[in-house]
Amino acid sequence: MSRIMNFNPGPAALPVVALERARDELLDFEGSGMSVMENSHRSKVYEAVHDRALSLLRELMAIPEDYDVVFLQGGASMQFALVPMSFLPPGGSADHIAMGAWSEKAHSEAAVWANAVGARARVAASTREGGYTRVVRPEEVKLDDGAAYVHYASNETIHGVQYRQLPTFGRASQVCDMSSDILSRKFDVAPFSLIYAGAQKNIGPSGVTIVIARHDFIEQGRKDLPKILQYRTHVEANSLLNTPPTFGIYLVRNVLDWLQSSGGVDAIEKQNGMKAAELYAVIDAHREFYRCPVELESRSVMNAVFRLPTEALDKLFVDEAKKASMVGLKGHRVIGGIRVSLYNAVEPTWVSTLCTFMKDFVNRHG
Amino acid sequence: MSRIMNFNPGPAALPVVALERARDELLDFEGSGMSVMENSHRSKVYEAVHDRALSLLRELMAIPEDYDVVFLQGGASMQFALVPMSFLPPGGSADHIAMGAWSEKAHSEAAVWANAVGARARVAASTREGGYTRVVRPEEVKLDDGAAYVHYASNETIHGVQYRQLPTFGRASQVCDMSSDILSRKFDVAPFSLIYAGAQKNIGPSGVTIVIARHDFIEQGRKDLPKILQYRTHVEANSLLNTPPTFGIYLVRNVLDWLQSSGGVDAIEKQNGMKAAELYAVIDAHREFYRCPVELESRSVMNAVFRLPTEALDKLFVDEAKKASMVGLKGHRVIGGIRVSLYNAVEPTWVSTLCTFMKDFVNRHG
Repeated sequence: MSRIMNFNPGPAALPVVALERARDELLDFEGSGMSVMENSHRSKVYEAVHDRALSLLRELMAIPEDYDVVFLQGGASMQFALVPMSFLPPGGSADHIAMGAWSEKAHSEAAVWANAVGARARVAASTREGGYTRVVRPEEVKLDDGAAYVHYASNETIHGVQYRQLPTFGRASQVCDMSSDILSRKFDVAPFSLIYAGAQKNIGPSGVTIVIARHDFIEQGRKDLPKILQYRTHVEANSLLNTPPTFGIYLVRNVLDWLQSSGGVDAIEKQNGMKAAELYAVIDAHREFYRCPVELESRSVMNAVFRLPTEALDKLFVDEAKKASMVGLKGHRVIGGIRVSLYNAVEPTWVSTLCTFMKDFVNRHG
Repeated sequence: MSRIMNFNPGPAALPVVALERARDELLDFEGSGMSVMENSHRSKVYEAVHDRALSLLRELMAIPEDYDVVFLQGGASMQFALVPMSFLPPGGSADHIAMGAWSEKAHSEAAVWANAVGARARVAASTREGGYTRVVRPEEVKLDDGAAYVHYASNETIHGVQYRQLPTFGRASQVCDMSSDILSRKFDVAPFSLIYAGAQKNIGPSGVTIVIARHDFIEQGRKDLPKILQYRTHVEANSLLNTPPTFGIYLVRNVLDWLQSSGGVDAIEKQNGMKAAELYAVIDAHREFYRCPVELESRSVMNAVFRLPTEALDKLFVDEAKKASMVGLKGHRVIGGIRVSLYNAVEPTWVSTLCTFMKDFVNRHG
């Protein structure tokens, strides 16, 4: 078996120990005589995994006691709908900060719901005109004083833009999509009313979504929706309202165990910073060749995007990298170019190998 | 490794070959150097799996050309909400047939949505008074001529009640929850407008939902909902509107490959019939001891429920069976007693072993 250097944007590389553990016990989980995914979600065997995943999340992120943590399905995209359904009342408004493809999508979905119930989903600020090459600065945001909440994304995977320090916008409830940088760095949960994240970047496989929300915010949610669409019912049922994606949550548990034993969020933040610094140093040393459109202070530690002088060179770069066992480097079709995703499970040696390749590539083709 | 005889009601036993295949390639899928769950959902490697799973479903179930097939998330419980959201218009009504816990839940969730939009979710017939011990007969149903659709469940896992022949109710569109018996027998898809099923009984792990619907019915769905909540957008995107639960779908592919190589639905239907016949024969031979409350013609081939003369004997039965490596036999907390789930992956030899155990148990304790 030969493992490859995987820079995929998500679904992304997972820690090999988390996968080996899954492999070794796939047909017989902890002596139960069956796979973890064949166990009942109401069994003691599974519930221990479920509760361990939840408590590891609380511990690793230092989530305050008055916050609920739940596992849902449907990815961040489902949250784009569920957040306004619960928290944007008829006649109300929500403020959206748009700084890339994902925060734009969150806004469009909210706008559809707002339209259906006679509410408004406003764009309080957008960097669309500049092509999403920097974060939105708090001072340029035009907030609605009566907004039910402000929604933003901490990191934009397609445009490679990230808040290096997490801002808050005004005094409304803060809702944040952290799909692509949750658990990559330390931050204070307390300013947020609700945080959500699809698992498939830093947490586990696709098919699991994590929601972290202040309990009193959850309680404000609309009550006349089907139960499956309300956050409170999932909280009350400890994420066992209906059958959860048990194997996905089990893998989340494995990934979080790995993260904890690797030194937790502090250690991974340091490592992520070093990986990104090494890569951006090569980009900056050859800025005429590796052209990063993102402003310096908005560059993402998770997804570095750049273009080569021609599309033909972009393609050659991806092809040659693949021959050298590095994959997942092609930029998103929306913007083209190259994208290097540097999530937690991307090993520092892979980044060093990529940097060496990049220096060699510019020497040969620059 | 010692595998157990697993009669779990869902998540349930999976074919061992489907799991072995997953184990063997968990760290390196088809030479990609990574797990299938680390591959991009837009990669050729993953898309081949995705498309194969969809085409196997079409082939095994003989799904007509004018039907769409999609993979969603959230289980049958999410469909309880999405069906009325798309197909129950303001001012309209839907007819629900209630014959157990799951069809009741489908009705309650529909009723919440109906109430919110000024529509009605009617109970057109229910066997609640009799304790859900038989199917609803078409002649006792009071249909609304103008109903947008009729909803029923083909099998009730908790109450052990199943339509041995699938009925249609009136002339409205037929919507059916087949979570617990899809792929267990041959049936004609054509009378149905929409069929849905959570995967975790006969198809794969929890976290994947299958929806099969006539294309023109999908097109009638409400258009002013967030895209993630509309069936049509998932159809248009070939179930890749957002990141699907890739590993779950991969396992579905493995299970369907197994089913096909085992002779398909015809062969499994025959085998399922023999398993159920053997079990019910033991129950009937000791009807004073193994008391099945379900009327003869409504007995489920997938979930056999019965009670012993006392709760203490129920408990002893479960405990002794466990010592003999048979698990998952405890009845649902709502009705107690014993439940034997006989899904596709439950091997005939397990059922024979259980039957021998049951005869011995009645000799010792009857």
